[in-house]
Amino acid sequence: MTGQERSEEKSECMSLSPMMEAVPAPPESERVCVFGTGDLGRSLGLRLLQVGYGVVFGSRRPHSNSSLIPHGAQVLGHAAAAQSAHLIFIAVQREHYDFLVPLANQLKGKVLVDLSNNLRKNQYPEANAEYLQSLVPGAEVVKGFNTLSAWSLQNGPSDANRQVYICGESVEAKQAVIAVAIKLGFSALDRGFLSVARELEDFPLQLFPQWRLPLRIAIGLSAAFFFYLLIRDIIYAYVTQSKDISFRIMVSLANKVCPIVSLIMLSLCYLPGVLASFLQLYRGTKYRRFPDWLDRWMLCRKQLGLLALGFAFLHVLYTLIIPIRYYVRFKATERTVSMIRENRTTEFDTTTAWRGDSYLSLGILGFGLYVLLGITSLPSVSNALSWREFSFIQSKLGHLTLLLCTAHTYLYGWNRFLSSSTYKWYTPPGYMLCLVLPSVVLLLKLLLITPCVDRTITRIRQGWERGADQRNPKDSQPLIP
Amino acid sequence: MTGQERSEEKSECMSLSPMMEAVPAPPESERVCVFGTGDLGRSLGLRLLQVGYGVVFGSRRPHSNSSLIPHGAQVLGHAAAAQSAHLIFIAVQREHYDFLVPLANQLKGKVLVDLSNNLRKNQYPEANAEYLQSLVPGAEVVKGFNTLSAWSLQNGPSDANRQVYICGESVEAKQAVIAVAIKLGFSALDRGFLSVARELEDFPLQLFPQWRLPLRIAIGLSAAFFFYLLIRDIIYAYVTQSKDISFRIMVSLANKVCPIVSLIMLSLCYLPGVLASFLQLYRGTKYRRFPDWLDRWMLCRKQLGLLALGFAFLHVLYTLIIPIRYYVRFKATERTVSMIRENRTTEFDTTTAWRGDSYLSLGILGFGLYVLLGITSLPSVSNALSWREFSFIQSKLGHLTLLLCTAHTYLYGWNRFLSSSTYKWYTPPGYMLCLVLPSVVLLLKLLLITPCVDRTITRIRQGWERGADQRNPKDSQPLIP
Amino acid sequence: MTGQERSEEKSECMSLSPMMEAVPAPPESERVCVFGTGDLGRSLGLRLLQVGYGVVFGSRRPHSNSSLIPHGAQVLGHAAAAQSAHLIFIAVQREHYDFLVPLANQLKGKVLVDLSNNLRKNQYPEANAEYLQSLVPGAEVVKGFNTLSAWSLQNGPSDANRQVYICGESVEAKQAVIAVAIKLGFSALDRGFLSVARELEDFPLQLFPQWRLPLRIAIGLSAAFFFYLLIRDIIYAYVTQSKDISFRIMVSLANKVCPIVSLIMLSLCYLPGVLASFLQLYRGTKYRRFPDWLDRWMLCRKQLGLLALGFAFLHVLYTLIIPIRYYVRFKATERTVSMIRENRTTEFDTTTAWRGDSYLSLGILGFGLYVLLGITSLPSVSNALSWREFSFIQSKLGHLTLLLCTAHTYLYGWNRFLSSSTYKWYTPPGYMLCLVLPSVVLLLKLLLITPCVDRTITRIRQGWERGADQRNPKDSQPLIP
Repeated sequence: MTGQERSEEKSECMSLSPMMEAVPAPPESERVCVFGTGDLGRSLGLRLLQVGYGVVFGSRRPHSNSSLIPHGAQVLGHAAAAQSAHLIFIAVQREHYDFLVPLANQLKGKVLVDLSNNLRKNQYPEANAEYLQSLVPGAEVVKGFNTLSAWSLQNGPSDANRQVYICGESVEAKQAVIAVAIKLGFSALDRGFLSVARELEDFPLQLFPQWRLPLRIAIGLSAAFFFYLLIRDIIYAYVTQSKDISFRIMVSLANKVCPIVSLIMLSLCYLPGVLASFLQLYRGTKYRRFPDWLDRWMLCRKQLGLLALGFAFLHVLYTLIIPIRYYVRFKATERTVSMIRENRTTEFDTTTAWRGDSYLSLGILGFGLYVLLGITSLPSVSNALSWREFSFIQSKLGHLTLLLCTAHTYLYGWNRFLSSSTYKWYTPPGYMLCLVLPSVVLLLKLLLITPCVDRTITRIRQGWERGADQRNPKDSQPLIP
Repeated sequence: MTGQERSEEKSECMSLSPMMEAVPAPPESERVCVFGTGDLGRSLGLRLLQVGYGVVFGSRRPHSNSSLIPHGAQVLGHAAAAQSAHLIFIAVQREHYDFLVPLANQLKGKVLVDLSNNLRKNQYPEANAEYLQSLVPGAEVVKGFNTLSAWSLQNGPSDANRQVYICGESVEAKQAVIAVAIKLGFSALDRGFLSVARELEDFPLQLFPQWRLPLRIAIGLSAAFFFYLLIRDIIYAYVTQSKDISFRIMVSLANKVCPIVSLIMLSLCYLPGVLASFLQLYRGTKYRRFPDWLDRWMLCRKQLGLLALGFAFLHVLYTLIIPIRYYVRFKATERTVSMIRENRTTEFDTTTAWRGDSYLSLGILGFGLYVLLGITSLPSVSNALSWREFSFIQSKLGHLTLLLCTAHTYLYGWNRFLSSSTYKWYTPPGYMLCLVLPSVVLLLKLLLITPCVDRTITRIRQGWERGADQRNPKDSQPLIP
Repeated sequence: MTGQERSEEKSECMSLSPMMEAVPAPPESERVCVFGTGDLGRSLGLRLLQVGYGVVFGSRRPHSNSSLIPHGAQVLGHAAAAQSAHLIFIAVQREHYDFLVPLANQLKGKVLVDLSNNLRKNQYPEANAEYLQSLVPGAEVVKGFNTLSAWSLQNGPSDANRQVYICGESVEAKQAVIAVAIKLGFSALDRGFLSVARELEDFPLQLFPQWRLPLRIAIGLSAAFFFYLLIRDIIYAYVTQSKDISFRIMVSLANKVCPIVSLIMLSLCYLPGVLASFLQLYRGTKYRRFPDWLDRWMLCRKQLGLLALGFAFLHVLYTLIIPIRYYVRFKATERTVSMIRENRTTEFDTTTAWRGDSYLSLGILGFGLYVLLGITSLPSVSNALSWREFSFIQSKLGHLTLLLCTAHTYLYGWNRFLSSSTYKWYTPPGYMLCLVLPSVVLLLKLLLITPCVDRTITRIRQGWERGADQRNPKDSQPLIP
């Protein structure tokens, strides 16, 4: 993480630290060394002391800042500290790494754990850990722990930040670091050689990498439909009837864009699965990789679905405030007044009532399922589900949601699909455009669940390959697929 | 998990695997063997390499498919591979287990970990692990890791899928497997002897076992009240006044069924706790087991409550769209028009305003608490609560929610309880029926919190037994109850 | 946890225990002893057996209650049991600790783990663990595991209750206990010497300690604004026009109090961060602690924000039911009727439509972001975010939410700020009062993000100190800040 963010937590750390007095480790316990007595170094040292390590801090001026050092730790000069332990955590900023050069002798053969991060991507030509290795070629540099904050070190790992990533050239060095990580309560994952260090250093700097594509799609669709509907609804009225209904932008137009984008995003969420099935069906095997675009698309299905839920949520709110709007109340009064003045009467139309109520009811049920899908994609909920349960909800209930929302939109359109007055300037209204994709997805899915297609797909997914029955089944076939 | 579901994850695995190059393990590290080079076998092997094991794959054609094998692993023939390690993971489908029979000699005394799953329950007469044991009687079979996917093996354990279950006859064999599990970052739970294997193999196939009873109750109640209200509201109007108001099914009827089912389910959620207290009070001890039906009922309280919340959520949505409905807007206009044509005036009635607003306000507050209860039952939230906090929310706030929702329903009924026109065909309206159970629960709870009863209950829960004071308190009494 | 709460789980435990048959541990495995055969003792023993320990229960009557003892465990008299193991878990209530006094000889040098809890804070003059130490001065007492229930011991640790806290005088004793905790699947955190025991014993008794201050603020603000608006709206109307509009308390007044409190709480959530920045700017360093009140304030920002979201949620519901209210429907009809009778007409006012729709739209978008902030503060979601992502959402989106909600309120006021009739009895309406704080926060934040101020703040947070450039940068400066 960047300096800025880590330090924002500082005040919280401080107010908690009095609770965590470190206990002097017994003389025979394993010793580790920490270079750097900043927030991170001190927190790491404290935590190491708590799980039973002996801790030696390396400092340029060992006597000046001992008041902040956790009780039980030793503070020595860098050279002396380096000699006292095999494992050295470098909790110093990259800019100051040059102080290690004169220590090259003492650091020979030692394991140096680089914990540093940068403030932005590509700040330096090479990764900090690679730079460190180049400064001290005799040491074994391991990159790791850089996704942790002083805060999480002091309070122990919790849930998702329990995982730490390490990389480095030497397997023995990495295993020594993994052992410390496990003792600290983390679970360490070896990501490979030191060339991966840059990737690990970019981890804390990433800003929703998986959300970018779905967000761009959402923004693109919203903008496109906004301008399309702006022209069709507001500019059309202005041009043909010279009526200024621009106030409709704020609610009416928003309440058209939201459901349209939501429905398209929801079908985009289920389309790749359907396409993948057809591809497997066409190829007759599951052992060939999908094209890259399909892979990438499938990886962002969750994000597409959650954005679709967000737009559906806005659509629900925009719909529910309709009767509070000034325009709607004005129109209702006007209609009543004109009915009386012109002495008109209207008949209650049961078909309209059926259609309207069904339309609303389908929307409500669809939204209810939508919310259910959203809740089950919360990490803690989806982790508690078995695979069969998760796939039941995301696939079966997901397609049911799509079906309900599509039917809701069809009922909204009702018989206006055929009326020519719907097609202002020869353009179809927004809800018709947005029905194309979900209809296609639902039709394709319908095809896939017909018994004969379904049987073939199931066999392919169990490892069967078309025209491969003569091959040895034991190794080439899916072993526990 | 079934082959189908595991393979659906395949594309995701592949796209991530380039990041995780395995590192050759040092020669002196412990060796394990993996039979099977499918998705699961390779992922397991990769993960084992990453945490420092030496990995030998057993394959029928060791040279043919080495391109997919994680870097750093060896591939040998089955016999040679089996001899190289004490622990052998069998990542092969059950149908191909017969290839192990000729290896019986080499497998003697080895620990075989059966990772297999089936596609459906009761697919075979005996559990896969038991079948494996019968094929290789000289080996020590341990069932385990079968709840994991290739996906979760590659990415390391996270939250809820951190737990793996194992079973087997030999304690030493199980401890060897537990040691590997811990090194892989999982926490292993020994479930007993090999006879439990079938249960473990059914784990990934289960589909919401805890939700079945509550779902059946919800569906049963919904159906019953739907037909009851259909007769009372729609068929009654048709028979007595020949009016077709069938369109009301979609919204009005749904909006009666939802709150009724919700309130009944909520009281069903709190009834067993109250019954259990009375049972303890009657027995004068907490050391006798509850009847089985009560145990089962108490175990599904969370699910009952969440389903009740779902119905309440639908009720809220159905209520909020009321003013948008065509029927409602038509009636409002009609009322205004007839008022003017007949020159009637109505007086504003403060009592009606008070009643209506209180009714709405209680409903809103009740729903707010309902949602709070739902949020605190999310795994990640409830885990962060201390026991006292969890019990405060689920018990105190839960009963308060029930009280608010019951009062909301009473206010809805208001003075119609006494009017005879309410009882069409001598049947009470739905909301009256649904008030019975919550009223009983609240009355019983009221009894339980009266000081004298409360004191006795508290003493019983602290381990006091009626007529047991002469017994030795140290062992028979609740030790940290 | 208290006896009451633990025992409430009893029925659930029991119904599950048949699944977990313990397996006899091999004779060479490490032995631990458990004193006490109650729920907790038995569950702990079972779990210890499952992870491979040999377990000896100490009981006064070793033969009487062996039926409940997990299969594979031994039951001996206290003295014999004590001699068979180095580590002894004391799963007995504090009141019965005196039975340990005669065992002082056998317990000499043993590690005693005190698992006990009390029913309420300050039940006894000293902590249970300290009392235990005073009874058996020759033993090494370690407090720990008391936050666990019999339930969580039987089912293995999950997520947040994976952490256990221990304290004690002897480092060796604590390390022995930590080793057991790790083998049981928990991660243990050493909190220091035995004097911390009271704190650990109070853990399970705490009731939302972090929520107290925010809740008090919320209740205080609600009460203050309730009475303020009661006087301004209802009593004013009664005094000046003798009109009884007290029914408005239930919905109209509630719907004024909720948004006001919500907006104030939201700005209270972002004010301390802004103040802290200005303090750092003024001091020119980040290395001086904030005043205590600011520290405490910053620690409850999350709770302030979530309470604000709760009030916003109620505000949304109260707003959406407006058109269903009897009063509103009555007024709408009355207006239409009077328009016709008096033959008045009204013109459609585009400005009013723009203002009203913008006001609603801003509110909807603000609430949408509010909900997003709430979701990302769920433990499982916030743990899955990188630091940069979390800070982006909580800071950038948080201030945007505040901006939208403030603009929503300004639009609500519109031109009534200037009209003198707004100021009944010379008091400003509630929404004006509540605008003060958010406006100040937004203005200060605007100042902070002006380029020149922002640059200085960033440098300070990276460790730069005003007037400190001559100092040695390596140790005194932020090392990985």
